[in-house]
Amino acid sequence: MNHYRVLIDANDEKGLVHKVSSIFFKYDLNILSNSEFVDKESNKFFMRSVVEGAVNKKELRDAINALLPKNSSVKVIEPKKKNIIIMATKELHALGDILIRHESGELEANILAVVSNYDKLESLVEKFNIPFITISHEELERAEHEEKIIECLSSYKNVDYIVLAKYMRILTPHFVETFKDKIINIHHSFLPAFIGANPYKQAYNRGVKIIGATAHFVNNNLDEGPIVAQEVIHVNHAYSWRDMQRLGRDVEKVVLSRALKLALEDRIFVYENRTVIF
Amino acid sequence: MNHYRVLIDANDEKGLVHKVSSIFFKYDLNILSNSEFVDKESNKFFMRSVVEGAVNKKELRDAINALLPKNSSVKVIEPKKKNIIIMATKELHALGDILIRHESGELEANILAVVSNYDKLESLVEKFNIPFITISHEELERAEHEEKIIECLSSYKNVDYIVLAKYMRILTPHFVETFKDKIINIHHSFLPAFIGANPYKQAYNRGVKIIGATAHFVNNNLDEGPIVAQEVIHVNHAYSWRDMQRLGRDVEKVVLSRALKLALEDRIFVYENRTVIF
Amino acid sequence: MNHYRVLIDANDEKGLVHKVSSIFFKYDLNILSNSEFVDKESNKFFMRSVVEGAVNKKELRDAINALLPKNSSVKVIEPKKKNIIIMATKELHALGDILIRHESGELEANILAVVSNYDKLESLVEKFNIPFITISHEELERAEHEEKIIECLSSYKNVDYIVLAKYMRILTPHFVETFKDKIINIHHSFLPAFIGANPYKQAYNRGVKIIGATAHFVNNNLDEGPIVAQEVIHVNHAYSWRDMQRLGRDVEKVVLSRALKLALEDRIFVYENRTVIF
Amino acid sequence: MNHYRVLIDANDEKGLVHKVSSIFFKYDLNILSNSEFVDKESNKFFMRSVVEGAVNKKELRDAINALLPKNSSVKVIEPKKKNIIIMATKELHALGDILIRHESGELEANILAVVSNYDKLESLVEKFNIPFITISHEELERAEHEEKIIECLSSYKNVDYIVLAKYMRILTPHFVETFKDKIINIHHSFLPAFIGANPYKQAYNRGVKIIGATAHFVNNNLDEGPIVAQEVIHVNHAYSWRDMQRLGRDVEKVVLSRALKLALEDRIFVYENRTVIF
Repeated sequence: MNHYRVLIDANDEKGLVHKVSSIFFKYDLNILSNSEFVDKESNKFFMRSVVEGAVNKKELRDAINALLPKNSSVKVIEPKKKNIIIMATKELHALGDILIRHESGELEANILAVVSNYDKLESLVEKFNIPFITISHEELERAEHEEKIIECLSSYKNVDYIVLAKYMRILTPHFVETFKDKIINIHHSFLPAFIGANPYKQAYNRGVKIIGATAHFVNNNLDEGPIVAQEVIHVNHAYSWRDMQRLGRDVEKVVLSRALKLALEDRIFVYENRTVIF
Repeated sequence: MNHYRVLIDANDEKGLVHKVSSIFFKYDLNILSNSEFVDKESNKFFMRSVVEGAVNKKELRDAINALLPKNSSVKVIEPKKKNIIIMATKELHALGDILIRHESGELEANILAVVSNYDKLESLVEKFNIPFITISHEELERAEHEEKIIECLSSYKNVDYIVLAKYMRILTPHFVETFKDKIINIHHSFLPAFIGANPYKQAYNRGVKIIGATAHFVNNNLDEGPIVAQEVIHVNHAYSWRDMQRLGRDVEKVVLSRALKLALEDRIFVYENRTVIF
Repeated sequence: MNHYRVLIDANDEKGLVHKVSSIFFKYDLNILSNSEFVDKESNKFFMRSVVEGAVNKKELRDAINALLPKNSSVKVIEPKKKNIIIMATKELHALGDILIRHESGELEANILAVVSNYDKLESLVEKFNIPFITISHEELERAEHEEKIIECLSSYKNVDYIVLAKYMRILTPHFVETFKDKIINIHHSFLPAFIGANPYKQAYNRGVKIIGATAHFVNNNLDEGPIVAQEVIHVNHAYSWRDMQRLGRDVEKVVLSRALKLALEDRIFVYENRTVIF
Repeated sequence: MNHYRVLIDANDEKGLVHKVSSIFFKYDLNILSNSEFVDKESNKFFMRSVVEGAVNKKELRDAINALLPKNSSVKVIEPKKKNIIIMATKELHALGDILIRHESGELEANILAVVSNYDKLESLVEKFNIPFITISHEELERAEHEEKIIECLSSYKNVDYIVLAKYMRILTPHFVETFKDKIINIHHSFLPAFIGANPYKQAYNRGVKIIGATAHFVNNNLDEGPIVAQEVIHVNHAYSWRDMQRLGRDVEKVVLSRALKLALEDRIFVYENRTVIF
């Protein structure tokens, strides 16, 4: 008996649950968990089922697809480790949290490599026997540097996600397009606030009483893709912006790891600039 | 076109979602929202659907029931105001929050009366043109006092819920049995901690850094029924137990109102000593 | 024996705590609680002490002032009820929460009046025997309408705070200047995000996973004064913007009441665009 | 110019702040931060100041002590790395979080060793060039096993704290007495709830909507010492107890690291069964 994750994204119409569940019934699949959501405004239907049984994945997908409206998306996925590449710069908290979780076996992921524009994190990464690749941006035009990184990343086959664990360089639309829907970023601010450089200093100057972090997919604009997870922490007047930065790191790492876990478990649907998370 | 809430509680078996959705399809009902949960350990299936259409409620219920395993429970409910009675003692924060929400129209409820063992809250309740009934416990045995209250509550027809908004008297099993599954209580502590008198003082003495409140259905034991909602707030060494009590009130009122709202919207299933909340 | 709140705002220099505490010692005052904060960047010193004893307030103030650097501010306040006026429009949750807290006696405040541009909340306010004044903006230029409100508010003597409990009209700099440092507003968003109309719809469109509210003093710009309190709540894809608005109200009322309480207890210092809260 | 942390724990009496600040003034020390707290019920005074200047530590301590009531405690500490030993069993999340923070340089600590009753975590710890010592409890009486550990720990000089990072063996009063006030534990539950084995299963069975973790000093009873930090996370009916355990680990590691940081920065006073944290 195997498990399958069935992900459906379709225009809504009456009877969809009935149709899909009839296929599960026909193929003698037991539903282990099931989530649906209908966005009334955009008339979109989302469904994620985990089913148990023995079935040909392609056949199941086609059988479901045949009953759905045109332009629907159906995925049938067998749970297995996904391939990820992590990009970082100099801070180790977010990267370190992923490495420790990976070590504990809780992530359904193979970390193919860590790519950085500095070599500062090399000794940490190598402790875990993971390849570390430094691609310095010094003396390079932005486009040249990015092309080198694209080349490096493209040399890996079947990369499922690229995780920006505090990678502090701005990515061009070309880069984002190359790895469309695959890039997860941790933004060191509670989006949509304080976009730009040093958000903790901005937060301090604004005298906020709460700071936060946001994990999101990256689309054209580095800080503006669909949000996956957010978390906050209370601060007060006695926190300098460096205190806020330090505390913010604890939030950042938790939020990024949470988002990564959701992605690895195929729990995220993206549509428009939003996410549905089951 | 009407809305119906369909609530199903059954032993789990393969094909339940398929069977229920086939009935919705047959009666031309559009699913507006749908939630399911299977508890693997106890092999229980729970489902709450909101459907839109025009149907005879009894017919729909029987049609669904005919397809389910024996001993299943099916309810088909048209949303309308439920009848509630509030019981309180001397503190007005939880009662006041319900009165204000009721005034704003956000609660699907008729407040039939407020019953108290003191008259302290009478002037507040009467501002809102809601009957206030004082049943003093003075000079009465506990059983006598409770019998008077039962008599009073029983004089109201179709009471859906009895809300204990800081009613500070212990209820006997007889009382609880009389209004089985209808009593919602706010416990001034983060259950299961600090059961008993003055939990804030206990919390203070224990030096906790977080306090909370718990809303729950009342079963045999006043403080131990199925939990509906919980919330907490951070405290520190500078809070006296009276400070904790004062802050705790803010949590209590929010949690009780949240639980009441869930009950009024038929979102709660109770089984064993647990709740499923959709 | 009386209690006095001593509030000091000065440029920092060595020995300030020593100097102030020497005065308390000299006047035989017992320190019940004491908080200090030094902002190193702006070199500012803040202190709030609650002392117990018998002293002439003016004499104490002058004695402390004589030891402080030039341009220091010293206030000696005996705790008593402050006078507040509440402004609201049509929503009753924030106003209602204040009225219930006032009724319970937990606020150190006299509510002199509630002023609104609609009469919708009149019946609620009158239940509590508080004057309700409708000043409709219909058929009036903005300046005319505001002048009428200023005239009304100015007819009350010794108003300590004006509380905007979801007053949905933009205030001009003239209004703000007239009641400088006295206006507390609840902003229906987690500042600095989503400034402008319908922040909940903006938040929904942005697909955020957390929403919040911000209480702040009003300076020139309605949404940009010094922040006093903030709170958030988690949401997910299943929340429509109306759901977010409804839930947001629970946060708004809690945050506004918390900020009001801090103001009434003289716990807030404002400097630059920030607050120090003891 | 050096920094000194001055920690005072005394019976309260009038003028203490004045007396201490006069000493700072006399020794030409600049106060960088200052916190005081008086517990009225137990008549205890606590103060933590960070001062800047150049002074003989012992002389400063004696000068302050001379002005305080009898039986007062005064400590003058120069910030420097403290020596810690970590004890763990098989789970790596809490240990891993400390190792990563240590690697990043954010902890004021030297990790002298990690001691475990299993060798499972050895490969992780050795990546960080920290000694790992396995002291198996197999085939040993509890007392024998513990004596071996005491012997091992005692071989290190100047151990400031022993951190139980999910060390899953019960410690005897003898062990606790040997390292009195030095043991910090993470309790996998929101104390005082669910004391005992498998609290997550207990929490699941009780149907709680919030789970948490508690970091505390260990006194006679493993789960009952003074609480340093607590944190919680919301759960719902869909979480199995294993889900709760997995999520609970995220809370555990954050809370333990937070408590450790407070200890390393000399921010914790312990009295009765409570803590004052500045």
